[in-house]
Amino acid sequence: MTSYVLPLAVIFLSSFPSSASTAESLYLDMTYSFNQDSMIWPTSEEGFKMNIIIRNDTGAFYIESNSISLPEHCGTHMDTPAHFAKGNWRAHEVPLDNLIGPAIKVNMKSKADSDRDALLEVADLQAWENAHGRIQDDVILMVYTGWGSRYPDKLTYLGTDTSNTSLLHFPGIAPEAATWLVENRKIKAVGIDTASLDYGQSPDYRAHQILYERNIPGFENVANLDKLPATGATVFAIPMKIEDGSGGPLRIFATGWNSDVTDPCSFSAGCVNSPFAAPFLMMLFLAVLTTF
Amino acid sequence: MTSYVLPLAVIFLSSFPSSASTAESLYLDMTYSFNQDSMIWPTSEEGFKMNIIIRNDTGAFYIESNSISLPEHCGTHMDTPAHFAKGNWRAHEVPLDNLIGPAIKVNMKSKADSDRDALLEVADLQAWENAHGRIQDDVILMVYTGWGSRYPDKLTYLGTDTSNTSLLHFPGIAPEAATWLVENRKIKAVGIDTASLDYGQSPDYRAHQILYERNIPGFENVANLDKLPATGATVFAIPMKIEDGSGGPLRIFATGWNSDVTDPCSFSAGCVNSPFAAPFLMMLFLAVLTTF
Repeated sequence: MTSYVLPLAVIFLSSFPSSASTAESLYLDMTYSFNQDSMIWPTSEEGFKMNIIIRNDTGAFYIESNSISLPEHCGTHMDTPAHFAKGNWRAHEVPLDNLIGPAIKVNMKSKADSDRDALLEVADLQAWENAHGRIQDDVILMVYTGWGSRYPDKLTYLGTDTSNTSLLHFPGIAPEAATWLVENRKIKAVGIDTASLDYGQSPDYRAHQILYERNIPGFENVANLDKLPATGATVFAIPMKIEDGSGGPLRIFATGWNSDVTDPCSFSAGCVNSPFAAPFLMMLFLAVLTTF
Repeated sequence: MTSYVLPLAVIFLSSFPSSASTAESLYLDMTYSFNQDSMIWPTSEEGFKMNIIIRNDTGAFYIESNSISLPEHCGTHMDTPAHFAKGNWRAHEVPLDNLIGPAIKVNMKSKADSDRDALLEVADLQAWENAHGRIQDDVILMVYTGWGSRYPDKLTYLGTDTSNTSLLHFPGIAPEAATWLVENRKIKAVGIDTASLDYGQSPDYRAHQILYERNIPGFENVANLDKLPATGATVFAIPMKIEDGSGGPLRIFATGWNSDVTDPCSFSAGCVNSPFAAPFLMMLFLAVLTTF
């Protein structure tokens, strides 16, 4: 009997978080809070605003309530395909299935560290595949530039604190890499830890156009990408459901769910293990044990 | 060998969606789109508004973009505990762990059909337990009144299309039931398919106060509760991360994840099966097979 009980027991026990992290989150939140510093595009006239309606004890009860206003492309947000591709999905039309999936992280931090206009190129995607295997169908591809450490300082994050877009300097995705992805691989969505999928000096947002023409949404100003593993996490990119929105506020988070995570306990948000894994494996483990 | 292969094969195959629904969503979206009809509290001065900034072909590229404004308690939204309990969690402080969990649905539709001021009472919770077993720790409790079929018609959904709150008529949770829940059970959050956890005629929002004092958030104007099973689904209630928000726009959806779903294919959004179940079970099935 030990021939099968031992490996199953190992699988079962390894599906639990380590005891050191039981009080921590199962989720890595990759979202910046919305506040007066939330990043906006330099040409936006207004950013995020909160108006306090009431914060008061009425005698019978305490109550607080606010109203908010913001451009759709503010802070951590989704770009819908319709943002740059007429007739494609707007915010209420993007299926949740296209916003939830296994995440892969392509690391271009060292390139960006030495060149703020660096581009993610086809060779970078091929180097990732050489290290981790072919990019699987239906993944969500996250581009890690290291720019998150500069957020929300406009001068270092965008390259300028003025409205002059010719002064924008930050890394992004080369149009050729976007073309290679849509022609050779089948990804669900793309995210990045800068203000735009295209690099700051792009004159025409070609990477946006290439991806959005294929109904591949984009996630911008994504936080905490340094803590996401290269493979093995599942990303949930959950946007506000704005009817006919061109994008909107996004709550994006990750959780671990398979054995591909090299070091799941490296997430500062806590040891990331699937909330789904333990009950399943326990059930199966007990079912198999009781079969014999 | 057939003694264990057959049951494992059954478990494995039953973890896939039926072929009839393979093109449909894995998720039941329980969110109303935000638009000019999004429900607001009668005393709110303004509702959801979208302002089109640009929808234009610039020559070099097509682009569309909008700005939005809304009260936090509008459409499908989260109430944070701070909404009625001073010092408790505001929007950016509610942990994702408290917003994701196994869902249970308590059905009070027949009571509400015959009395628009009906209350969910302790006896209803006890009747649910008699049918389904004790309410487990860390569930998200959804109250189904049937009111969703009236949304967004203010007269039938709220009881009035005026700002006179004394004319509000819709079902809700009795303060005694809220007290019973916080004193005898350990739930993560509560949702309802009306505009408020408390019923329309409540003078003091006692059910809100009782739950929010214990840092239990509320979800209001939840859609599609008719399609949620009584047990067996996992709910993801994912709010916009508003710094110091008293609540805010919520994207709430469900997916199946265990064998407790009586009829997973009854979801009109598609046969709900876990995206996590199949790979896990396949791996284990193959592992067990190859062990022998």
